[in-house]
Amino acid sequence: MTAATTRSEHDLLGDRDIPADAYWGVHTLRATENFPITGTPISAYPHLIDALAAVKEAAALANEELGLLAPEKARAIVAACREIRSGQLHDQFVVDVIQGGAGTSTNMNANEVVANRALELLGHEKGRYARLHPNEDVNLGQSTNDVYPTAVKIATVFAVRGLLKAMAVLQDAFARKAVEFRDVLKMGRTQLQDAVPMTLGQEFSAFAVMIEEDRSRLAEAVELIHEINLGATAIGTGLNAPAGYAEAARRHLSEITGLPLVTAANLVEATQDCGAFVQMSGVLKRIAVKLSKSCNDLRLLSSGPRAGLGEINLPPVQAGSSIMPGKVNPVIPEVVNQVAFEVIGNDVAITMAAEAGQLQLNAFEPIILHSLSESVTHLQRACLTLAERCVDGITANTERLRATVENSIGLVTALNPHIGYTAATDIAKEALVTGRGVAELVLEKGLLPAERLAELLRPEVVAGSGAPTA
Amino acid sequence: MTAATTRSEHDLLGDRDIPADAYWGVHTLRATENFPITGTPISAYPHLIDALAAVKEAAALANEELGLLAPEKARAIVAACREIRSGQLHDQFVVDVIQGGAGTSTNMNANEVVANRALELLGHEKGRYARLHPNEDVNLGQSTNDVYPTAVKIATVFAVRGLLKAMAVLQDAFARKAVEFRDVLKMGRTQLQDAVPMTLGQEFSAFAVMIEEDRSRLAEAVELIHEINLGATAIGTGLNAPAGYAEAARRHLSEITGLPLVTAANLVEATQDCGAFVQMSGVLKRIAVKLSKSCNDLRLLSSGPRAGLGEINLPPVQAGSSIMPGKVNPVIPEVVNQVAFEVIGNDVAITMAAEAGQLQLNAFEPIILHSLSESVTHLQRACLTLAERCVDGITANTERLRATVENSIGLVTALNPHIGYTAATDIAKEALVTGRGVAELVLEKGLLPAERLAELLRPEVVAGSGAPTA
Amino acid sequence: MTAATTRSEHDLLGDRDIPADAYWGVHTLRATENFPITGTPISAYPHLIDALAAVKEAAALANEELGLLAPEKARAIVAACREIRSGQLHDQFVVDVIQGGAGTSTNMNANEVVANRALELLGHEKGRYARLHPNEDVNLGQSTNDVYPTAVKIATVFAVRGLLKAMAVLQDAFARKAVEFRDVLKMGRTQLQDAVPMTLGQEFSAFAVMIEEDRSRLAEAVELIHEINLGATAIGTGLNAPAGYAEAARRHLSEITGLPLVTAANLVEATQDCGAFVQMSGVLKRIAVKLSKSCNDLRLLSSGPRAGLGEINLPPVQAGSSIMPGKVNPVIPEVVNQVAFEVIGNDVAITMAAEAGQLQLNAFEPIILHSLSESVTHLQRACLTLAERCVDGITANTERLRATVENSIGLVTALNPHIGYTAATDIAKEALVTGRGVAELVLEKGLLPAERLAELLRPEVVAGSGAPTA
Amino acid sequence: MTAATTRSEHDLLGDRDIPADAYWGVHTLRATENFPITGTPISAYPHLIDALAAVKEAAALANEELGLLAPEKARAIVAACREIRSGQLHDQFVVDVIQGGAGTSTNMNANEVVANRALELLGHEKGRYARLHPNEDVNLGQSTNDVYPTAVKIATVFAVRGLLKAMAVLQDAFARKAVEFRDVLKMGRTQLQDAVPMTLGQEFSAFAVMIEEDRSRLAEAVELIHEINLGATAIGTGLNAPAGYAEAARRHLSEITGLPLVTAANLVEATQDCGAFVQMSGVLKRIAVKLSKSCNDLRLLSSGPRAGLGEINLPPVQAGSSIMPGKVNPVIPEVVNQVAFEVIGNDVAITMAAEAGQLQLNAFEPIILHSLSESVTHLQRACLTLAERCVDGITANTERLRATVENSIGLVTALNPHIGYTAATDIAKEALVTGRGVAELVLEKGLLPAERLAELLRPEVVAGSGAPTA
Repeated sequence: MTAATTRSEHDLLGDRDIPADAYWGVHTLRATENFPITGTPISAYPHLIDALAAVKEAAALANEELGLLAPEKARAIVAACREIRSGQLHDQFVVDVIQGGAGTSTNMNANEVVANRALELLGHEKGRYARLHPNEDVNLGQSTNDVYPTAVKIATVFAVRGLLKAMAVLQDAFARKAVEFRDVLKMGRTQLQDAVPMTLGQEFSAFAVMIEEDRSRLAEAVELIHEINLGATAIGTGLNAPAGYAEAARRHLSEITGLPLVTAANLVEATQDCGAFVQMSGVLKRIAVKLSKSCNDLRLLSSGPRAGLGEINLPPVQAGSSIMPGKVNPVIPEVVNQVAFEVIGNDVAITMAAEAGQLQLNAFEPIILHSLSESVTHLQRACLTLAERCVDGITANTERLRATVENSIGLVTALNPHIGYTAATDIAKEALVTGRGVAELVLEKGLLPAERLAELLRPEVVAGSGAPTA
Repeated sequence: MTAATTRSEHDLLGDRDIPADAYWGVHTLRATENFPITGTPISAYPHLIDALAAVKEAAALANEELGLLAPEKARAIVAACREIRSGQLHDQFVVDVIQGGAGTSTNMNANEVVANRALELLGHEKGRYARLHPNEDVNLGQSTNDVYPTAVKIATVFAVRGLLKAMAVLQDAFARKAVEFRDVLKMGRTQLQDAVPMTLGQEFSAFAVMIEEDRSRLAEAVELIHEINLGATAIGTGLNAPAGYAEAARRHLSEITGLPLVTAANLVEATQDCGAFVQMSGVLKRIAVKLSKSCNDLRLLSSGPRAGLGEINLPPVQAGSSIMPGKVNPVIPEVVNQVAFEVIGNDVAITMAAEAGQLQLNAFEPIILHSLSESVTHLQRACLTLAERCVDGITANTERLRATVENSIGLVTALNPHIGYTAATDIAKEALVTGRGVAELVLEKGLLPAERLAELLRPEVVAGSGAPTA
Repeated sequence: MTAATTRSEHDLLGDRDIPADAYWGVHTLRATENFPITGTPISAYPHLIDALAAVKEAAALANEELGLLAPEKARAIVAACREIRSGQLHDQFVVDVIQGGAGTSTNMNANEVVANRALELLGHEKGRYARLHPNEDVNLGQSTNDVYPTAVKIATVFAVRGLLKAMAVLQDAFARKAVEFRDVLKMGRTQLQDAVPMTLGQEFSAFAVMIEEDRSRLAEAVELIHEINLGATAIGTGLNAPAGYAEAARRHLSEITGLPLVTAANLVEATQDCGAFVQMSGVLKRIAVKLSKSCNDLRLLSSGPRAGLGEINLPPVQAGSSIMPGKVNPVIPEVVNQVAFEVIGNDVAITMAAEAGQLQLNAFEPIILHSLSESVTHLQRACLTLAERCVDGITANTERLRATVENSIGLVTALNPHIGYTAATDIAKEALVTGRGVAELVLEKGLLPAERLAELLRPEVVAGSGAPTA
Repeated sequence: MTAATTRSEHDLLGDRDIPADAYWGVHTLRATENFPITGTPISAYPHLIDALAAVKEAAALANEELGLLAPEKARAIVAACREIRSGQLHDQFVVDVIQGGAGTSTNMNANEVVANRALELLGHEKGRYARLHPNEDVNLGQSTNDVYPTAVKIATVFAVRGLLKAMAVLQDAFARKAVEFRDVLKMGRTQLQDAVPMTLGQEFSAFAVMIEEDRSRLAEAVELIHEINLGATAIGTGLNAPAGYAEAARRHLSEITGLPLVTAANLVEATQDCGAFVQMSGVLKRIAVKLSKSCNDLRLLSSGPRAGLGEINLPPVQAGSSIMPGKVNPVIPEVVNQVAFEVIGNDVAITMAAEAGQLQLNAFEPIILHSLSESVTHLQRACLTLAERCVDGITANTERLRATVENSIGLVTALNPHIGYTAATDIAKEALVTGRGVAELVLEKGLLPAERLAELLRPEVVAGSGAPTA
């Protein structure tokens, strides 16, 4: 006699055959049939799977503590959840990342996998739900509407930590260059027009500080994500969650995850409100904007090699052209720009999804999770790639840079306090038309004595201290 | 005895005093109180006011024709509408551009102004609605839900015509420069890196052709705006609009406006569908994207004067800096960039408003009209400003440009068919490292005879015909 | 002696070991290392892989025809391309969907796979590029900058065809329901308030017509995608592409793909212009907006079962809640809403990428391709899912619907032409306050004779013909 | 002899006639000619004008303190600035809100108005710049690039304070209703489907709490706006600003404005970074999303009067239809929705403008200011309008609401812990098909004793405490 290859499961639509070795069950099956959208299963977001398991584990412990769940069942559920959190069974999380139903299918998938693994651990066959039930035991005292947002928040916190680390790596890369280039004089530019001298170190220091500020903002934003609604059940009234459950579950979940989670004061509000995700995405967008701006600058400063600005050199990482021999392109900044565009687009998708929530629930949280995860993950990889494959290897064309300063008209700005804006304007105009130098013209007109002029126009003086402040 | 300074009007909420000299009435008064949002009245969109008057005129003529409206009333209404279309009474259109209610307040405002002016023409005092009624006569057989979208479409058609003309002016300006610069050799760039030679004429020709293509797309898109739903009344079932009315009203409206209007085949669908506006906005966004790209290029090519690319010079139109004497900035392209960003933002607002429509109507058409009008009008002004205050005065730094070509490594690409991609890569690499010229290295290695090489590397040959095709 | 497990390849950065069985080579290897962003390889877009092979095939045929490529080499390249187009070797297209470099890595990946497979077919080992070279033979007369946009366009055309078919399926589903529900009377609503009667058939007919219109717009938009720039090479000047090449390659490519491709008149412009993609995305956004609106309506009309509008029933496709027994949710419309939000977000990403193009090229085409492919594919699946798992099974609560009509105040609108807007307003007001019926009040006030009134208020009359026009 | 009607002024482009009574000068004139975009002058943002005057006043005091500006001049400048801050001369700020040049024209406009008014106060004619110069005196030690962002930040802080107050008004309005409706039982809904009972007070409490949270977030975001770059001058190196100037100017500016301003640690970074504006806009978008969601709910809950949910009544504020007598529409929530769409669109415009900054400056700050000001101002008006013209007057249809609870299937959820999810599912299914009540079926099947059942299903119990927590 051979083992059966399927088992039968039942839901409100009828009976369905499930592969015997599948840990997921009938609800998951329906969901995979109903949502054939992206082909990407939720296991693509391991932080989410771990977070779901953490929530199920915390709920089981709380239920056991309150005497609602038999210790044996609780132990089995906890053991199953820990296996999942250790990286096992992730391949059983098969519903599509874009799905209808406010995350119900994701929660059902989790309930079924946990239940079936717990059944096995208890010595039963998968599918023997009379012994331990996905909804009545694993989901006890819970609803998708509190489990899912809670898990999404925990997953986001862990994902954002990864991003924060990657941003620190990039910040350090820029800061090291700021020190390296601290004495490299160059022309600063506003509106792409020659302005006044500065150092290349100051320029790279600004890149570093930009990221540092964004890290601070991101760290603040992730704090807001620690407020959960576990215990809210269906709509926030806590129906079927007994007194003490919300607090016990939160406590266990904090211990399991190591996160200082707090339960929202108003659970009805917390269950329907996606504001924290919108704000998180807004901060990710801010980061994307600044990263993109920095990459635009790197591409511009390294334009050339001969007909461009040619101020810096990005390290070559691949041949740049299938037709133009020897061409090397700024492909790393370019890929970061594209991630930034994606993040900005994702923010619009998240915004629309959040706005579309109705009454006691937002049914569109799955696309919020999907977009947010994508933004965080891609930004993380973009930061590391930019640091390691580009910034670390940047070199400066120091002599060319100094020549542009010495040849510049912008130096005349430094004479404003001494000859006035009006006279300086006339000098600048004449220098531009004739191609002559500022100093030469000032001397010719006798506006300042030569020695004084030389001191005033010394590039280091004009550029300020030159010391990067990062 | 002095004239009364107010008259009393009545609506379902009760009685209100109206300034005696106001052509608008109680419905308009309520609306101005209810929507104190932007402070900008709908008279800011003269095309809309004219279009509303045209619709009211067409409806009156159709109603008269069908024997539903007394000829005397019809004549007075028509006369009032013509005054409005000649530019009079626009200051009586006072409701806010952002308003609740699917345009009802705008339609009510039009009904009241037309009615009161018609009453005057008939020798009655304003407000004597028993003689000629804003809703029962001016709005006869109509609903906001067919009048407003119809008027918005007509207004958009006329506004877009203005934009098409402005785009033609800009296209011509670029095309003239393409001819002027047809022999100016320069380095083409991909990914901001030196690529292969081309002419500045080709570069400007591309700007011209880009606008030409966008004009074609815009002209196509505006065709879709000629489909109206007049006769649909409240929800598209044509309730209260007798047989023949829709066709008669469309015919009169076509005559009045000179536009080849057609009535939608399915009026229920047409009354709720904002797709044509979304598409129009999408095309405006396309135009904005291309304009912005072109302005980015102009700013980049004119960067300098000494530390930038310095390929072209934009005409100075104002002092560029309050601190840096003689600095001239690309302020005209910059303002066009900003209009582009605004148009792209407006597209998102229009998209959200269109998506938010429910069941038989989109209540959010006012913000669609507002955003669309703003986009069209600002793009029009941006195109004219760019043409007249920037493109027309652009000059080329011909010698500098030619030098970059002669000095370039990219020339080596032309040798691919003769020495192969691999050998060419080695030459390019050596040229970059040593700073030497491509020709020099090829000769040194004996890869090609000198005469042949000189011919192959002649910039005019490498650049292709050099003749702009615009 | 065992077979070597690697082969060595060389590029401008040095030597690298390549797995011996890999058809891709050193350029692809560099790219996979440089772009570890999404983890999704370009093989996720089979239309793109096929299109790349088609372009390589067409180029080889053109080169052979012009005597630039030995017939033997051409035959091998063509054979390799046909294998790819038949679905083989797709797993060798391994570079990330988000990549720097304007698609260079994708083109290099294609060159290498074609070259190595052609080498095998010629009896050589992979990597023996002296016999047949990825750049010098497979890429002959080409540049990424004409190959890639051309392939993206062809891929988009084929993907859009799939979407057009799916939209037709959905349109048919709605149209069938329009016929089925043609006699089901209901209240129409504007601004969510009861308006005037209509039929449910009219409501579904509007859904069908909306999609029909969008199909027309999409079909028009895809026409614009048939213009290619093959032969432009690096920047549009056609450097290294001999006379006749562009035309020959276009002719072969048209034959291979069966598409009526045309070569752009101005290749410099065509090589840098992403307007056609922006417009295509704008039309996809239009479709998304309308689909989302329709799904919003379906969810609203099916709200209940007891405390909602309860006008229609969506077929249950899965249990709706992990806590609320028997709850069935509109998960199919919900997943379509989410796809719509994603498409709208993607449009912003595409817009930014298009705007960021500089000078002779847009380096950000990979994210444009990625976003566009995602939008088209997901919309296609969403349309089919909506048709098959939702619309086909919708039923109407006919009696409940009729009761709302008979009980409605909105019926009074039909009396406007007979008792006037002012008197009708008073009736409506009294009906609302007292809870009494409109007919009852009209009779009580003696405004119309009973028989006449009954005729005027007959719902079928008020609703118009009641016949769906789809 | 009559007074001259014009005076002549000079800039680097030549001489121009200025109206004799104009306080603005030649730079402003050029700008008004160069930027004919919106027709809206910067005086539309009074907070900006006041902030510019505050900056000029602070700079003059700092310059005087450092001995750089004669006390007499300083006194005149300070006096002129105070007049402006008291509301005078705002009509002299005439440059367009959308302008090229990073705000240079706005700063030049301010310099000229202050200078000319100061000249008058000193007894000179306007235009006698030899006595007191717009650039050399009023703009002493400053650059547009530090003055403008500083003024924009101060203006934003004051504008946001207004918004915070308006949000508090709206929060209070919702909170009062939460108390008023605390005992009104109703069905909660998830995914528009009947879920489980709650109170209307809980529902309104959630609206209140949502705004409260957003206020907290906005208050945090505005803190980040207090960091200024005054003293940075052109690019952040502080050129021409002597030691001590930045600190002195900041101190005076803090005193003048009453704001705890801090000077950025890295002025090069601060001068080019628009991140704080992006984040502020992101928070405004969050507020818009939540406001829009709340308005969607209000519109849905008040749908009817007979064929909708009919749970609450919004106060009528105007007649709703030009054709449907007695129709009252939710126009106030509708106008708020539209403001939300505008704010979301503005966020995209701000995002693009911020991303487009290059090197040491963002040239697109004017559109950032414009969009941000519009968003803040319109949101403020929308909140007040919603509170005063809608929320305050909302009433509940208490009996209808209670009936939906008693008739609901969702009550069965409360039985989960007592009869199990599986049995409860069967009950729910049968209730739906047969139209019978949940209690009736439970009793019939003998699942629970009657008395126990009655207690479990008591709506107040099912809804939880029923006490709003706001």
